[in-house]
Amino acid sequence: MKIIVVGASGTIGQAVCAALSGRHELVNVGFSSGDYQVDIADEQSIIQLFEQIGAFDALISTTGKVHFGELSQFNREKWSIGLDNKLMGQVNLVMHGLKYINDGGSFTLTSGILNQDPIRFGSSAAMVNGALEGFIASAAIELPKQARINIVSPTVVKESLPVYQPYFWGFPTVVAAEVAQAYVKSIEGLQTGQIIRAGW
Amino acid sequence: MKIIVVGASGTIGQAVCAALSGRHELVNVGFSSGDYQVDIADEQSIIQLFEQIGAFDALISTTGKVHFGELSQFNREKWSIGLDNKLMGQVNLVMHGLKYINDGGSFTLTSGILNQDPIRFGSSAAMVNGALEGFIASAAIELPKQARINIVSPTVVKESLPVYQPYFWGFPTVVAAEVAQAYVKSIEGLQTGQIIRAGW
Repeated sequence: MKIIVVGASGTIGQAVCAALSGRHELVNVGFSSGDYQVDIADEQSIIQLFEQIGAFDALISTTGKVHFGELSQFNREKWSIGLDNKLMGQVNLVMHGLKYINDGGSFTLTSGILNQDPIRFGSSAAMVNGALEGFIASAAIELPKQARINIVSPTVVKESLPVYQPYFWGFPTVVAAEVAQAYVKSIEGLQTGQIIRAGW
Repeated sequence: MKIIVVGASGTIGQAVCAALSGRHELVNVGFSSGDYQVDIADEQSIIQLFEQIGAFDALISTTGKVHFGELSQFNREKWSIGLDNKLMGQVNLVMHGLKYINDGGSFTLTSGILNQDPIRFGSSAAMVNGALEGFIASAAIELPKQARINIVSPTVVKESLPVYQPYFWGFPTVVAAEVAQAYVKSIEGLQTGQIIRAGW
């Protein structure tokens, strides 16, 4: 399969590429690195990405920004970071990718544990994760081209603890290589509309 | 309790008001009717609403627009209807209501069945419902003033079938008076962070 990995240079993205390389043709996409670059918050940038890459069999997105901060300090600008980037960025990868995906192809997006197991400062992450999970459940029954769509919801990744530990004391952790298997299952299997938990 | 009902003239809103009147002081809010008017998609309109009403004990929102349509025909404008109105409209009722809510007060928002049980044309509803459910789960643990927040997720309301039946063949239905009890439970009880299903 020709597989596009958006967020290929990230902690999870690297592990996904390692798990898939050898058996598949990978197209690495990043914000500033990889075979192609994209700013997923910019719909035009996504359109150009697919024009450059052309037909593909699977797209994996392991990327997306949200703002973390105290609930009472959120304003429209801070909510919009998550809505424009992690939510609509990933949704638009699907919407515009649909024109180029081969029949029977698949999309695999990324949410996270925080809508089910919330933390201080995590309101936007919880909102966006819930939105993405609702979206894929509905898109799964309506996608054309026999395309499938799933989402991976990891707990905090062990390799990211140096940065995220203060937010996630007491949470289960998961190594990136194990999270990567959730994406592998999504693209090699036949299920659709699934939230695939990783590490919790 | 002084209870603000946003969407008071709607099918569910009327039933909520009927269930609460007598025991409580109700403030009816609508887009073009009621004691006060608000356009929840307009943050400034929400700010003005609370300036006019002042302190309150509970806020119930039974309102919010989303676009229904074929997934492949969605664009940013169509996604934005749901994101700006049903999602951020209800979120902003909480964000700005926080300044005026009395200690120990409560917010009760409305999602719906479609992120768990999707239908054709329902991608935006599914996205927005999921987002709202993620938001309230996280806000519940972070709200100041000992405020509580829950969300009611109804299946299709029987009184709305003349309009919505073609989207919901085979779904369980629920009468508005029964949905109203979910809001009553939310504001009279002590639970927080709960998704209260109505009729399914």
